[in-house]
Amino acid sequence: MRSLLSVCDIEEEVETILNIASDFKAGKIEEKPLKDQKLAMIFQKSSTRTRVSFEVGMYELGGTALFLSTNDIQLGRGEPIKDTAKVLSRFVDVIMIRAIEHDDVIELERESDVPIINGLTNLEHPCQALADMLTVKEHKGGFDGKFVYVGDGNNVCNSLLLICGCLGMDMAIACPDEYRPNEEITKKAKEYAKANNSTITITSDIEEAVSGADVIYTDVWVSMGDEEESEKRRADFKDYQVNQNLIDMADDDVIFMHCLPAIRGEEVSAEVIDGPHSVVYDQAENRMHAQKAVLYYFLKELYK
Amino acid sequence: MRSLLSVCDIEEEVETILNIASDFKAGKIEEKPLKDQKLAMIFQKSSTRTRVSFEVGMYELGGTALFLSTNDIQLGRGEPIKDTAKVLSRFVDVIMIRAIEHDDVIELERESDVPIINGLTNLEHPCQALADMLTVKEHKGGFDGKFVYVGDGNNVCNSLLLICGCLGMDMAIACPDEYRPNEEITKKAKEYAKANNSTITITSDIEEAVSGADVIYTDVWVSMGDEEESEKRRADFKDYQVNQNLIDMADDDVIFMHCLPAIRGEEVSAEVIDGPHSVVYDQAENRMHAQKAVLYYFLKELYK
Amino acid sequence: MRSLLSVCDIEEEVETILNIASDFKAGKIEEKPLKDQKLAMIFQKSSTRTRVSFEVGMYELGGTALFLSTNDIQLGRGEPIKDTAKVLSRFVDVIMIRAIEHDDVIELERESDVPIINGLTNLEHPCQALADMLTVKEHKGGFDGKFVYVGDGNNVCNSLLLICGCLGMDMAIACPDEYRPNEEITKKAKEYAKANNSTITITSDIEEAVSGADVIYTDVWVSMGDEEESEKRRADFKDYQVNQNLIDMADDDVIFMHCLPAIRGEEVSAEVIDGPHSVVYDQAENRMHAQKAVLYYFLKELYK
Repeated sequence: MRSLLSVCDIEEEVETILNIASDFKAGKIEEKPLKDQKLAMIFQKSSTRTRVSFEVGMYELGGTALFLSTNDIQLGRGEPIKDTAKVLSRFVDVIMIRAIEHDDVIELERESDVPIINGLTNLEHPCQALADMLTVKEHKGGFDGKFVYVGDGNNVCNSLLLICGCLGMDMAIACPDEYRPNEEITKKAKEYAKANNSTITITSDIEEAVSGADVIYTDVWVSMGDEEESEKRRADFKDYQVNQNLIDMADDDVIFMHCLPAIRGEEVSAEVIDGPHSVVYDQAENRMHAQKAVLYYFLKELYK
Repeated sequence: MRSLLSVCDIEEEVETILNIASDFKAGKIEEKPLKDQKLAMIFQKSSTRTRVSFEVGMYELGGTALFLSTNDIQLGRGEPIKDTAKVLSRFVDVIMIRAIEHDDVIELERESDVPIINGLTNLEHPCQALADMLTVKEHKGGFDGKFVYVGDGNNVCNSLLLICGCLGMDMAIACPDEYRPNEEITKKAKEYAKANNSTITITSDIEEAVSGADVIYTDVWVSMGDEEESEKRRADFKDYQVNQNLIDMADDDVIFMHCLPAIRGEEVSAEVIDGPHSVVYDQAENRMHAQKAVLYYFLKELYK
Repeated sequence: MRSLLSVCDIEEEVETILNIASDFKAGKIEEKPLKDQKLAMIFQKSSTRTRVSFEVGMYELGGTALFLSTNDIQLGRGEPIKDTAKVLSRFVDVIMIRAIEHDDVIELERESDVPIINGLTNLEHPCQALADMLTVKEHKGGFDGKFVYVGDGNNVCNSLLLICGCLGMDMAIACPDEYRPNEEITKKAKEYAKANNSTITITSDIEEAVSGADVIYTDVWVSMGDEEESEKRRADFKDYQVNQNLIDMADDDVIFMHCLPAIRGEEVSAEVIDGPHSVVYDQAENRMHAQKAVLYYFLKELYK
């Protein structure tokens, strides 16, 4: 049994999963390969894309998805993760969880008898990273270019670091020193990058970072859970907005990416996100194709 | 691509859609004509009938429905309608929304790449009006009679005005002057009525209105969102209760209709809603048949 | 049309339903026998096991389940139970309700045109009792042993009393005098027990009760709704914890049961619930098999 908690869990298999995702998108895989299987989706935080993309994806795979918000289930009333894991394992074939604490997902995985898919934690967002790389593959033809992440070194950034390392794509991160991505993850990502002959640069110099960028990616400055420090964050990130000036410093064919939801006028100008370089809706759609690939890979492909 | 935001959107097609609804109810249409299609249902307000009738209806059509309450999705956290529209369009085939502001639904429709169905706004409730007219057709054999609406000139009243105009059914509205239906809609409805040789009367004289009525219809005095003015409303509407006295002024075979939920003892007496003239549960059931017809018409019939 | 509000409703049929449950678990019943049928699930209280087991169960039976929390539907806004019952009856084939007041479920059943399944009320939890007896049957080979319930004489205890009476299984309850199970139910259970040559003992002497026990069952001391008296209850029940001492007084092969969620260190020690005598996850799984049997029995078997 395999789970996807971190991009590290699929270090050697990222390209395989992306190829499956492309095949799903192109309609090249048999219909409904996971017929009658059940996915439990646990949400500790609200969600549009994660919820809808998993639910529709599982339906297209021939199965069904149960939406469990922590308002509705006992987990919200303090039931131990162990019991939730053991009980859900009796009812469903796979569990997706959007959690606040990454450690809770690690515990869930330890106690579960079925695969766990990380649908976002404070530490990582591997499904997003897969969708993002599928989008890069489609729009840039591969991973030879320079991937630039601008802004908060958050969970999304962590997973992008790792996946760029795995795929050997050069990556630069432009962020204030205080908001650098997780250190351990950065170290791991640099190991991956070294093995795959690519580079990872982290700098507070946004101009240096975006120079020659093939992809510019950003995320909100104030993520769910960070609301208390919103004023400070807006001040700290004010020079890190992705706007037309920044786009002009990049490659002519640069694509703009954002995992959404976006706040126009903060981390990205309306001109950019609604402009010709933006691929954000393709990227959102790819959540579904990438996740179908993950589900298919873990529940079927590995056991063929 | 066609949407249903207002009865005006189907001005010429009301009867066609009602006929499809009758055929669905009678089992005359192939099973599961919308196989594997997905409906997203967005709820900004709570709902029993709209939710269950759409979810069951979509299931019977062979597809699936996703229930998205604004507690659970990002739309509730301030994500722009545009992004929600664009993203959902990538995942589902049609979107139903129960919204507070009609203008939000107009914007959703403008940005969406799939059909939008209005499941109730502050301005209109076209699915309800279709279900109501299906009920009139079944119980009165057609639209030759006199349709009387008593009470608040609200969203339901607006859509009934328009649909009576479209079908050429004479309509009288009895309401306090302050609670007349939307002026623009009234004007539009009168144009429809004129073209179809029927009349529309709006009066505060309830006896005049119900005289000879074949249908008496009412709705709650205090709709969701109006709770602050509930005391004033109860006073203003106190003479507009549909009770046995009123039923006695109408045609002997008058039917009583109400879109539910109802408050017995306010807008309608228990004697009437639970009595022999009441068809309110047939009317509720017809929500499903009418909505199946709308979905089928917009997603399949138009493309045959 | 038959409903399951109380174990009394299936007095003569408990074994039949348990046999159907075993057959479902063993895969001996045709696949998807309730194809295209719809279950509405109304939740006035949060739930993991009830929700997931019914939703997955109905899916495995070939139908679909609608999750209606009272946050989302009009019932929460004061719509009369009658209208909810009548309207839902038009849309679905069967209704499950987790309610606060048992009397509300009785009213729902009176007004409904489709079967009602009690998914927990303040008075009874018949689906739990069926799952529990399925677990006893599997682990103890039948109902010849001694079933001991320790703790609060609550809804779960009430249904266990009745079902042990129906099956002729000896039962002992150890609880503080103040927390004895419902008197009327106790009387009815004793009648059943007498007819089936078994005994029912209620005592505050926990040692007497557990002596020779084949099954020891407990539940939380503070159920949902009892939170205000939690301190008093913790004091009152402090001598009623199921711990290793207690297990040692029972039969060597005693099984430990708990309907979950459990609070380790209160009504049960971690050593016991996580130890070799515990069958709590089998018991949780059996919720689904038992409920599939109930749905199948009420919707199909009775009409063969």
